[in-house]
Amino acid sequence: MAVDADFAELKQRLRTIEDLRCAEQVLLWDQSTYMPEGGAEARGRQLALLSSMGHDRLTDPPIGKLLDSVTPWAEAQGTDSDEAALVRVTRRDYERAIRVPSSFMRKLSEHTSASYHAWQRARPANDFATMRPLLEKTVELSRELASFHPGYAHPFDPLIDLAEDGMTVDAVRTLFAELRAGLVPLIDQICARPAADDRCLHGDFPEEAQRDFGEIVVRSFGYNFECGRQDKTAHPFMIKLGRGDVRITTRYRNDDLSDGLFSTLHEAGHAMYEQGIDGALDGTPLFHGTTAGVHESQSRLWENLVGRSLPFWEYWYAKLKAAFPSTLNGADLHAFYRAINKVSPSLVRTDADEVTYNLHVMLRFDLELEMLEGRLAVADLPDAWRARIKTDLGVIPPDHRDGALQDVHWYGGIVGGAFQSYTLGNIMSAQFFAAARRDLRDLDAQIGRGEFGPLRGWLTEHIYRHGRKFTAPEIVERATGEPLSIAPYLSYLNNKYRPMYGL
Amino acid sequence: MAVDADFAELKQRLRTIEDLRCAEQVLLWDQSTYMPEGGAEARGRQLALLSSMGHDRLTDPPIGKLLDSVTPWAEAQGTDSDEAALVRVTRRDYERAIRVPSSFMRKLSEHTSASYHAWQRARPANDFATMRPLLEKTVELSRELASFHPGYAHPFDPLIDLAEDGMTVDAVRTLFAELRAGLVPLIDQICARPAADDRCLHGDFPEEAQRDFGEIVVRSFGYNFECGRQDKTAHPFMIKLGRGDVRITTRYRNDDLSDGLFSTLHEAGHAMYEQGIDGALDGTPLFHGTTAGVHESQSRLWENLVGRSLPFWEYWYAKLKAAFPSTLNGADLHAFYRAINKVSPSLVRTDADEVTYNLHVMLRFDLELEMLEGRLAVADLPDAWRARIKTDLGVIPPDHRDGALQDVHWYGGIVGGAFQSYTLGNIMSAQFFAAARRDLRDLDAQIGRGEFGPLRGWLTEHIYRHGRKFTAPEIVERATGEPLSIAPYLSYLNNKYRPMYGL
Repeated sequence: MAVDADFAELKQRLRTIEDLRCAEQVLLWDQSTYMPEGGAEARGRQLALLSSMGHDRLTDPPIGKLLDSVTPWAEAQGTDSDEAALVRVTRRDYERAIRVPSSFMRKLSEHTSASYHAWQRARPANDFATMRPLLEKTVELSRELASFHPGYAHPFDPLIDLAEDGMTVDAVRTLFAELRAGLVPLIDQICARPAADDRCLHGDFPEEAQRDFGEIVVRSFGYNFECGRQDKTAHPFMIKLGRGDVRITTRYRNDDLSDGLFSTLHEAGHAMYEQGIDGALDGTPLFHGTTAGVHESQSRLWENLVGRSLPFWEYWYAKLKAAFPSTLNGADLHAFYRAINKVSPSLVRTDADEVTYNLHVMLRFDLELEMLEGRLAVADLPDAWRARIKTDLGVIPPDHRDGALQDVHWYGGIVGGAFQSYTLGNIMSAQFFAAARRDLRDLDAQIGRGEFGPLRGWLTEHIYRHGRKFTAPEIVERATGEPLSIAPYLSYLNNKYRPMYGL
Repeated sequence: MAVDADFAELKQRLRTIEDLRCAEQVLLWDQSTYMPEGGAEARGRQLALLSSMGHDRLTDPPIGKLLDSVTPWAEAQGTDSDEAALVRVTRRDYERAIRVPSSFMRKLSEHTSASYHAWQRARPANDFATMRPLLEKTVELSRELASFHPGYAHPFDPLIDLAEDGMTVDAVRTLFAELRAGLVPLIDQICARPAADDRCLHGDFPEEAQRDFGEIVVRSFGYNFECGRQDKTAHPFMIKLGRGDVRITTRYRNDDLSDGLFSTLHEAGHAMYEQGIDGALDGTPLFHGTTAGVHESQSRLWENLVGRSLPFWEYWYAKLKAAFPSTLNGADLHAFYRAINKVSPSLVRTDADEVTYNLHVMLRFDLELEMLEGRLAVADLPDAWRARIKTDLGVIPPDHRDGALQDVHWYGGIVGGAFQSYTLGNIMSAQFFAAARRDLRDLDAQIGRGEFGPLRGWLTEHIYRHGRKFTAPEIVERATGEPLSIAPYLSYLNNKYRPMYGL
């Protein structure tokens, strides 16, 4: 009886924390989509208030007592039970949160909100000077945040751990080194071949037709617009405002088909993950995707493994041509397929092809580590960026816009802990897809018929529905029968790109 | 010193309450504009949470102690000082709020949110049956809310007092009887004359051109889009999401020019009031318009006294014709002026002309009082509505959509306390405008030149900037030198409509 009452009280408290968190997301969504310029200062204060209220409630000592009270009972329900998982994950969040003072969280939220707003204007204006002191402050606050969590091997492990439970600076470095060793020879060989012709992707693509086509595709994937919507932002994202309200954003370029289309598929992948979590977990910390890396595996799976595959376009290409009758330069299916998979070292991470993409991530991971360790001053970041991207990819950004200012992460959040998850996601996306193909047998043919139900069903069964019940390694092992491995990813890239480039 | 610290603490607490209130407004705005269907349940819970958090903070006993501590000092700053007003208004809010249990506020907020969402679907579907039990519950909750405030002459005085400080059921009844006595003969005489021809307002008016024209006009009034924006909703409204973020909404009918245009002018009037409040009052309960009636006087002033005047269209009509080159049926300025001022008893309050409008308000005021007093069952509301509108206006609604379901108020808020302010606003709008014309001398000529700066300056000086520092009667007396009177309003209507209808 006492345990029942304590568990009910714990869940009631967690529900309030989740509702506060969702309210904060509404304010964030509005800030990025429709908020007028003049609202920035007040919004920053409102966001900081809600964030600190959520933090105060999570760190309220009764939470710790309630957890102590219900843990033996919850564990007795079995490791895989919702109850045991709830207690496990809540304790982890609680133990992490109580180390960080509420006043710090408030200061951080106010700062990142102001910085984000400044970045929205500074990036198009190519204005690094404005962002420099803001980023310096962000680096300082990121260090301070990490410092609240002692006992890690590397002082910035806690920032990574926040996004990827159990992952460390050392583990990421090892994995990245391995992956780099597999990628660089492939990139070198592709670059020695004639470049693919992607002129069919450039032309005049009316925004409305782009939006309509993208929405038809993601609807067919299974993204539910009655519980979602799509808006435009400078930097596309997915956001959950509550159960039944998971939104995506995108951006369009009139002269470029692929930017808006693949952003939409990508964000819909994130959104379907959130939409697919078991409703029984709503109102608890389990009602979210498990880690940033697993989340990214779902967006990349739909964007790349599905959306840039030949079977996919065997079904969709005729429809695309009908949507844009006067463009695409008469490209046939195979020419189009080659165009959307053109490998070409470039400046902007989000525009990068699958093969070079991870080098962009490694660059950011290394530079942010240098900034956090104090080996790189923010003032020197643009130069360091230019030097590194020239070495890695042979290109030089002509401005800050497509250099050090290009990603929102450092300007709208902390420095450290975000970028590695993109590459972890890529690696997992191929491992999950290979397992789904093995289990479903007919997967390529299904995709070629525009049937996405079986794939989404497999993902729901093995990944989506569990929310945060399992860690990333557990999800990988359960879904694929193997521990995390770069082999399926390298094999996917080699099997796809070697024939395409005649290697 | 102790007083200084207490005043600073009081202001800090009030700032938090205001920030919570604004966060709630962001959620409400989103709920009416862009939220997908599936988000309704979670949003209701989030709104209820924020609302109850604000209520808890306002009713926190230290607020009472801080008020006691700072009152003598604040009053010593002079009755008109910001400090004295802050203490006066905060004490009023506090004394009212502590009478209402937090659990009730939460229940009310959850219910009105669910009811509002149901009404958004039920009104277009003409579905009163769905709304009936919801409205019954709203009536019950409205009664319960009133019951927390004893000591009033009429049990529903507190609901009116909430919107209109010091106003009572009896006072409203007296004022309405007087006004009705002045209006009915004018309406009867106008209806005996040939109807005005308003065909020029009907045709094909592309939405985008309507929006552009409306926005140009309200920009010229002085509505600041850098601190605001306009979106579409079923029921237009103005909402403040924070300092520097005061938004309006409107709706458009492709076949009717006046609905969208005058809604926009109306809501911009509300918004300019909020945008014009002295920034020094931000973060306190003074940073809002003083009462619903004074607010409505500002929307009606810009919509009607300015926007339906002949001088206004002497400047704008050529521009309107240019915006809609293929419509307006070749109507000349005077024909257009007669069309937008056509007096014709009709079904829908928000479409009603200036002369019959107040009879719609009186109908609602009487019916809601009957529901609250238990003399009218919700089940009988549609019949009672039909009977009353037939008696007063000679028209009969063919459905619920334009009958008892037409206004959001009873379905998205409480029953009682809202409608009387529309008529109070009309009365005050004419009194303020007459005073501005007297002070500015050249007002009609300024409006005829498209110059709204002097009028907005007068309104800012006498009304906007004060926020809630003064009550409605004080504002009227200070701005016009006279107590509230229906004389300027009846004289405005008679001077405008008698010549127009050859009376």
